Amino acid sequence: MSDSPTARRVSRRGLLTGGALAAGGALAGGVAVADPPWVRTASPVPVAEVGTAVEPFHGPRQAGVATEPQAHAAFVAFTLRPGTDRAALGRMLRLLSDDAARLTQGRPALADTEPELGLLPARLTVTFGFGPGFYTAAGLHAQRPPSVVDLPAFRIDRLQRRWSGGDLLLQICADDPLTVAHTQRVLVKDSRPFATVAWVQQGFRRAAGAEPGRTQRNLFGQIDGTANPRPGAALDAAVWVPDGPVWLRDGTTLVVRRISMNLETWDLLGRTDRELAVGRRLDTGAPLTGEDEHDEPDFAATGPDGLAVMPDFSHVTRSHVSDDRLKILRRPYNYDGAPNPDGHADSGLIFASYQADITRQFLPIQQRLAERDLLNEWTTPIGSAVFAIPPGCAEGGWIGQQLLD
Amino acid sequence: MSDSPTARRVSRRGLLTGGALAAGGALAGGVAVADPPWVRTASPVPVAEVGTAVEPFHGPRQAGVATEPQAHAAFVAFTLRPGTDRAALGRMLRLLSDDAARLTQGRPALADTEPELGLLPARLTVTFGFGPGFYTAAGLHAQRPPSVVDLPAFRIDRLQRRWSGGDLLLQICADDPLTVAHTQRVLVKDSRPFATVAWVQQGFRRAAGAEPGRTQRNLFGQIDGTANPRPGAALDAAVWVPDGPVWLRDGTTLVVRRISMNLETWDLLGRTDRELAVGRRLDTGAPLTGEDEHDEPDFAATGPDGLAVMPDFSHVTRSHVSDDRLKILRRPYNYDGAPNPDGHADSGLIFASYQADITRQFLPIQQRLAERDLLNEWTTPIGSAVFAIPPGCAEGGWIGQQLLD
Repeated sequence: MSDSPTARRVSRRGLLTGGALAAGGALAGGVAVADPPWVRTASPVPVAEVGTAVEPFHGPRQAGVATEPQAHAAFVAFTLRPGTDRAALGRMLRLLSDDAARLTQGRPALADTEPELGLLPARLTVTFGFGPGFYTAAGLHAQRPPSVVDLPAFRIDRLQRRWSGGDLLLQICADDPLTVAHTQRVLVKDSRPFATVAWVQQGFRRAAGAEPGRTQRNLFGQIDGTANPRPGAALDAAVWVPDGPVWLRDGTTLVVRRISMNLETWDLLGRTDRELAVGRRLDTGAPLTGEDEHDEPDFAATGPDGLAVMPDFSHVTRSHVSDDRLKILRRPYNYDGAPNPDGHADSGLIFASYQADITRQFLPIQQRLAERDLLNEWTTPIGSAVFAIPPGCAEGGWIGQQLLD
Repeated sequence: MSDSPTARRVSRRGLLTGGALAAGGALAGGVAVADPPWVRTASPVPVAEVGTAVEPFHGPRQAGVATEPQAHAAFVAFTLRPGTDRAALGRMLRLLSDDAARLTQGRPALADTEPELGLLPARLTVTFGFGPGFYTAAGLHAQRPPSVVDLPAFRIDRLQRRWSGGDLLLQICADDPLTVAHTQRVLVKDSRPFATVAWVQQGFRRAAGAEPGRTQRNLFGQIDGTANPRPGAALDAAVWVPDGPVWLRDGTTLVVRRISMNLETWDLLGRTDRELAVGRRLDTGAPLTGEDEHDEPDFAATGPDGLAVMPDFSHVTRSHVSDDRLKILRRPYNYDGAPNPDGHADSGLIFASYQADITRQFLPIQQRLAERDLLNEWTTPIGSAVFAIPPGCAEGGWIGQQLLD
């Protein structure tokens, strides 16, 4: 709570300039102290409203996709039990949709055994995803979107079963970790007759209000998500399915990959080498050819040595996409487990990207990155899963109804 | 972030009354809709300041004890390496104190490899504790406070080595989870020449601003911490060491116990049985003989059946202490891991209590609870550790200097 009698506040300007000096000049490349135009001004919301803020549940599209990312997430993947057929899936999704409709609005679930923990939604969203096995179980194999299938193996992968696959996904996000824990508890309990838990990945970003309007940083210290399509027409073109089977219109697809980050070897690099690996400055997130985070990288620019300023092996160069319809919407969360006895961190990223079509949008980027992204030296994909995200539902309806009913 | 265009807010009154109705009358016992007098009015702090709020590091007493609990914590326990003697401990604590002094004030550590992650303190505190093995390593066996020794075995214990013991503890708390992760990373890295990681326990409470001024709830839905000594003279009398060896004056002691909570069997109980087990109403936290959370329980009151309204086996009855000097200051965090395939939660409480003397204050309460606390049916201690918390230090000084220098 910020009302501790001893707490005081320091200005962002003081922090950043003080920090730059304290880091022995490492930041001398320049930290922007004036907010650039794309940083939203912090709204004068008192901290007391973090708990009571509500995201809508009902609507043509599911929440938790275009929603400004909340601070905490649990990705919960299920394996359907033998016998969970189309009718059973309908019962399961009616029940889970009702739970989610209530909890996201700050009302306990019907069978909530800890109703007091259901009263603070903190922008809770519950987003449902259908994995490759879902359609087979429902006897609707032909309805599987062609791109919702296990990704091809990449050279860089070291996938573990414990973080991979899944027939059904619930992405639970909120600005309060107790709300996420309670929602996870309720939804897992109500799923039990129909499914077992395949894996759970819990992650975090900056706390609500800690850094409003800024792009998230990962545990490498990198600004992560700058190239996302901007909210509005660009995001809509990238994310939402405009055609194809009726049940998937206003839906999308989700790729979840667990990326282990080797902080030990990353920390051995100097800042210049890190910035070359990423293609962006670590402090501002600006491309190496620009001044501000959102400047377009200039891949044609060369330095005095005649070499490209944006190296061909940099993450930004390899992942760059100009056409909004081919972009992906990244919505990742950090994870940080307990270090091992020698102090080596168990840290990484729960990479989550939304796009209308995995094959058309995600795969080409991933293939370019797998071939030749210098960041591969310090990152290892250890889990992978894909899901279709069906459309939303109106009040009285349920998620998946267009497919199953 | 609360400035999402789709987010809206609902009033606390609407939430609570709506919630009570939705829960099928389960809450009909009454949820207070008007804030009682001990609830601090939410200060008009914009959410933007969650990240920049600062707690002092330097001072006669360490921060992180009387400090209003932050939303996130990592308890990191170390085993000293062979050869880490008094001189080495001095070097280690100089280094870690310098790291903590900087990071808590929003400045990167001297050797910070991700300095951008050190700029938002979010009320970061780092609290140092010295376990039983610390004094032996320092050749200062006689300086060990007598109560800082492994607790006696309790009938209810199922202790695991992986959550127990430790020569040195760092309690890292902040309102932002990325700040906690980065601080853990820096401190573990700088400890590596001197110590290995014995265990790490990561936990959470409500997000900053989610429920200002309210007592924390645990994953059973119980309000947890009502009987804590109030800030000021009562807290000071319970927590801070007023005499004894000079190096411990203005210090305290800490008990950390990992308490597994069996939500499966707890959820089988009705609300009345749960309230009898606790001795408090689940909604308001009021004792069964009172109306408001902070009403004193009346242990003499009897019901129409002639039985005590506050059962002898209830948690509140067994743990009740009237004398402030014999109270303990609980500062617990929830933990919630991944459920097993069958959906059984890995949930519980990182119990943390501060008191001037473990033997005089903690042990009698714990013995009464171990003998006959109905809550034992649903909770199991699986880890246990004790530490002395040395006094704070002035600018230019370091934690432990009074003992080691």
